[in-house]
Amino acid sequence: MTERWSSALLTDHYELTMVQAALHSGAAQRRTVFEMFARRLPETRRYGVVAGTGRFLDALERFRFDPEVLDFLARNGIVDDPTLSFLADYRFSGDIWGYAEGDCFFPGSPILVVEGSFAECVVLETLALSIYNHDCAIASAASRMVHAAHGRPLIEMGSRRTHEEAAVAAARAAYLAGFDATSNLEAGRRHGIPTTGTSAHAFTLLHDNERSAFAAQLASLGTGTTLLVDTYEVMRAVNTAVELAGPELGAVRLDSGDLEELAIQVRKFLDGKGATGTRIIVTGDLDEYSIQALAIAPVDGYGVGTALVTGSGAPTASLVYKLVARAQSDAPDAPLSPVAKRSVGKPSKGGRKWAARRLDDRGVATSERVFAHEPELTPLERPLLVPLVRGGEIVGREPLEAARERHARSVAELPATARQMSRGEPAIPTVFEQRLSL
Amino acid sequence: MTERWSSALLTDHYELTMVQAALHSGAAQRRTVFEMFARRLPETRRYGVVAGTGRFLDALERFRFDPEVLDFLARNGIVDDPTLSFLADYRFSGDIWGYAEGDCFFPGSPILVVEGSFAECVVLETLALSIYNHDCAIASAASRMVHAAHGRPLIEMGSRRTHEEAAVAAARAAYLAGFDATSNLEAGRRHGIPTTGTSAHAFTLLHDNERSAFAAQLASLGTGTTLLVDTYEVMRAVNTAVELAGPELGAVRLDSGDLEELAIQVRKFLDGKGATGTRIIVTGDLDEYSIQALAIAPVDGYGVGTALVTGSGAPTASLVYKLVARAQSDAPDAPLSPVAKRSVGKPSKGGRKWAARRLDDRGVATSERVFAHEPELTPLERPLLVPLVRGGEIVGREPLEAARERHARSVAELPATARQMSRGEPAIPTVFEQRLSL
Repeated sequence: MTERWSSALLTDHYELTMVQAALHSGAAQRRTVFEMFARRLPETRRYGVVAGTGRFLDALERFRFDPEVLDFLARNGIVDDPTLSFLADYRFSGDIWGYAEGDCFFPGSPILVVEGSFAECVVLETLALSIYNHDCAIASAASRMVHAAHGRPLIEMGSRRTHEEAAVAAARAAYLAGFDATSNLEAGRRHGIPTTGTSAHAFTLLHDNERSAFAAQLASLGTGTTLLVDTYEVMRAVNTAVELAGPELGAVRLDSGDLEELAIQVRKFLDGKGATGTRIIVTGDLDEYSIQALAIAPVDGYGVGTALVTGSGAPTASLVYKLVARAQSDAPDAPLSPVAKRSVGKPSKGGRKWAARRLDDRGVATSERVFAHEPELTPLERPLLVPLVRGGEIVGREPLEAARERHARSVAELPATARQMSRGEPAIPTVFEQRLSL
Repeated sequence: MTERWSSALLTDHYELTMVQAALHSGAAQRRTVFEMFARRLPETRRYGVVAGTGRFLDALERFRFDPEVLDFLARNGIVDDPTLSFLADYRFSGDIWGYAEGDCFFPGSPILVVEGSFAECVVLETLALSIYNHDCAIASAASRMVHAAHGRPLIEMGSRRTHEEAAVAAARAAYLAGFDATSNLEAGRRHGIPTTGTSAHAFTLLHDNERSAFAAQLASLGTGTTLLVDTYEVMRAVNTAVELAGPELGAVRLDSGDLEELAIQVRKFLDGKGATGTRIIVTGDLDEYSIQALAIAPVDGYGVGTALVTGSGAPTASLVYKLVARAQSDAPDAPLSPVAKRSVGKPSKGGRKWAARRLDDRGVATSERVFAHEPELTPLERPLLVPLVRGGEIVGREPLEAARERHARSVAELPATARQMSRGEPAIPTVFEQRLSL
């Protein structure tokens, strides 16, 4: 329930001191272009997933220096009076384009392009990076898990292993990438994601014995519920479950042990009892590799926690937000010039960019094309930048379902290598227009 | 600015369905004890750091099912009407003890002990774990960086590489563990942590050349500011910086390249110009290992980002929240019995626990003692559990500075092995009273 409040202080101190110094020098009003991109993908990833756009647009709307915020800045001497006046009136009035949420990205893809005065663009750096770096990392990990599950349902249940608000965003990113539900109730309230859950070991331990715990759960939640069967001895628990619920039992959940072996035994037992419709849900420190290893086991759904919310080894997407062009002078109509730092090991390519995904005649992606000018696209090039903000007005809002559907289409368009679990290169190369490569 | 809102939905769905089923069975009112602990430490950690207590107590106070929350639960059929009534009146009325914030912990340390009815204790599981798992992970990584820095100041600047609200909590956890400042403004406002920052590469690139950018920054922020000198060529930038600011220049910042080699060259140059008081700050993908490697370089401070906010390889503290004891029956005065699940690979030790740190006669910690009863401690045993909540009333609030000072004392008390960067066992063993070991 944070979305009603100012997001302006979710910002690094230096963004505001840069505004102060630029107001002082007169350069604050220079027209600029900032871009967000990843220099590389994490080692195991063949593609990245754009996620966070909807959250960023909401946070942008709340990026207001209200009296409480200004009072904090003034009392702590963080910026001077002219800067406080500027911030009090702050409304982003520029333009933002971005890769549509759910689309895939690759090294160098300009996934966000922010154009406006230096002062209005630079202050969005931290907020934009925080949101996209987190959400893209989770969505990119989640998307691999979705492939590994081969169409079986996936439940996100990692809230307890990440910051309480990051948990809500993680549930959103996982759903966008193809997960089916979440355990997180606030994600249900805030984003409309289906929520699910039944009971933990504590519920069994609370009762005098497993039988009375199962009976209590069935009496209250119905025979369609999921009984957790690994508190003591799995096969005895499954037997008790079927005795109490009959063959209409919804599901049993395995949370420990050799999940493949147990699933085979449990399936055989359930089928023997006529409980052929009772599903087997597995949980317990799963990641994309263990999900894939369970492909041949009789498993009907996966619950994923820690690995999902920590980005399965890549908890941040390494996105950066860089000034790539600026007006040649303080004059209002001065043309833009590309700019780029030359720091060792951290090069950036100057100049505003456009992007398209090139497909072959079967519709399979073959390369990511990054241009230094607005290109005329062929029918086999899909444009990637969509307008998100025009003249300060948010125009890029869409339902989360739209991003979820887009992601499914975007991944389906990639070559088969994209869906490999092994390490390797990005699924398609990024090809920069020649003048960007210099 | 989230702290005014209900925290009740930052919760897993199954906590509430368990309440429903337990209300139905009559076991909801059974007295219970839940404990939070880590089964093990991450591979590289010699100790864990308790962090999140202050945030948890604030969130507990806001754990209220207000009309908006109840409406969501009702509309989505998540729980039945009797459960909605129970939740509408929910106020935690039990007792909570915990390791004091900032203290160190080890495998099996009962860092939080929650006692009350099943229904009132179980619903706190997700929220408590989210807060402690995140904050302990960050503080535990930060504490190692503080040792590695050998007294040189550390600035937390990782906001952009983690969820925007996790960033605020990460700044708090880092400060608690001994960091000196943060770049995160909301952490300054919310927790009173010193904030700092001056400029990024974008500021230099915005201006016609590096000289005019430096001049602009010095004119606005004063000669005590920190100039970023690696946008183009470091030594030329340092020369320009001293030409413009004179020997009173506050600091220069290096963000790329061979930091050790550069620091040596820059120090020599600055000293040659009489700028002996100008500090050298280094940033750029630092972690505890690179900080330690820079110990012999003429560096005056470190800025740490990604590695800090991602827990330097261990983004979650693996804490669990388990039912360890419950009333033997539904009778109001029924005595408590220990309970524990027997899931393969995930054992827990039943029974309410107490804990103390045993010290030798020089005051060095030798073991973590975990008891199954309230022990009579010797003068060489320091009790570890302090009251946080009594009869629903929060009694454990303290200033963040108190936790920060406690952490410094707690680490100083550990044997020297605790401060090694290499992999290895926990710095002290956890010794369980015999009846817990069975």
